[in-house]
Amino acid sequence: MEFSEYFPIWDQLTPGQRETLSRSLVSRTVKKGSVLHGGGADCTGLLLVKSGQLRAFILSREGREVTLYRLFDRDLCLFSASCLLRSIQFDVTITAEKDTGLWVIPAEVYRQIMEQSAAAANYTNEIMASRFSEVMWLVEQIMWNSMDRRVAAFLLEEAAIEGANRLSITHESIANHLGTHREVVTRMLRYFQSEGMVRLSRGAVELTDRAKLESMSGT
Amino acid sequence: MEFSEYFPIWDQLTPGQRETLSRSLVSRTVKKGSVLHGGGADCTGLLLVKSGQLRAFILSREGREVTLYRLFDRDLCLFSASCLLRSIQFDVTITAEKDTGLWVIPAEVYRQIMEQSAAAANYTNEIMASRFSEVMWLVEQIMWNSMDRRVAAFLLEEAAIEGANRLSITHESIANHLGTHREVVTRMLRYFQSEGMVRLSRGAVELTDRAKLESMSGT
Repeated sequence: MEFSEYFPIWDQLTPGQRETLSRSLVSRTVKKGSVLHGGGADCTGLLLVKSGQLRAFILSREGREVTLYRLFDRDLCLFSASCLLRSIQFDVTITAEKDTGLWVIPAEVYRQIMEQSAAAANYTNEIMASRFSEVMWLVEQIMWNSMDRRVAAFLLEEAAIEGANRLSITHESIANHLGTHREVVTRMLRYFQSEGMVRLSRGAVELTDRAKLESMSGT
Repeated sequence: MEFSEYFPIWDQLTPGQRETLSRSLVSRTVKKGSVLHGGGADCTGLLLVKSGQLRAFILSREGREVTLYRLFDRDLCLFSASCLLRSIQFDVTITAEKDTGLWVIPAEVYRQIMEQSAAAANYTNEIMASRFSEVMWLVEQIMWNSMDRRVAAFLLEEAAIEGANRLSITHESIANHLGTHREVVTRMLRYFQSEGMVRLSRGAVELTDRAKLESMSGT
């Protein structure tokens, strides 16, 4: 598939803008676990996912993590190019959660197109609003929801992403998604197991009662 | 002062766009404590502050609050017009923290200008990125910082906004800013008082040792 089919406003760009974009694109394939963008001043560029799965998270000084959002096929990552807008004053880390194919769009090229094209600027606005909404969902989760609800919601979300009830995931990894400690997750999962909602085994969690998990998650 | 002096991209609009904007603007004055925009489906319009102070916060189902950000002179509020972008999927409440003069820009008028004008769309992008950065700061605060640091940081921020060490604020109100319970704030403030950092009186908190509060806030 061509870039033009992944980039929804391609038809609204001028021939010159399309040529500049095409010439500056870099196609990359990254392995599961790769770090695509680390916090800090570097401006990796915008990432447009062909296929695969990326994860955006923040890191505390002590190395704790919390997941902000995931990116799937056709999603565009703006915050790996925080130099794009001077008002972006935070750092995210982007890693590949699966083997992922993507295009890297240099930030400067994108910025120039955005300055000329209202369509490109409005497309960027929609993407930022969409990520903003995901982060607001996270704020509501961490402010108002207890950890049992959050673990239940996370397991259901993972099962939806994977299309499976059996998740190959460690307690440590769940803790890193939710910004808590492994012990907290382990205690919660054992409680869920005692209630018949999950079955635990080494490196895996199997959902055995989704209805009960859904009621627990408050959704 | 005229709207044109408060709206940074005025000079980049066409005469037609300027006329449409001018004709549709509504100038309002609201009293301290007024609710300008409540959560829900209504689309109040964009708010451009002439002078005063607004507060944007979210509400839990149980009525708990947490402050997202404040808006001061010349700030533009986008999220009172969430119909502006279909990807804005969250509700904020906007109240006046001081008597405030502002212009209301109808969302539909602004949306049309944004569609035509790359300058308007990019200006909107910068504003959204700026609010996004404030919410990310909040996420970091609630994820990684303990409540003692957050109360200290809040008191210092308030003193900076007011330009005064004596703050007329209740413990309940501090709790509503931080998304916690009044009892937690009262306990913290009493501890701060015992350490000589503040002096408490009815309806007021006076900062008596800013250096110590700064060190406590981790800044």
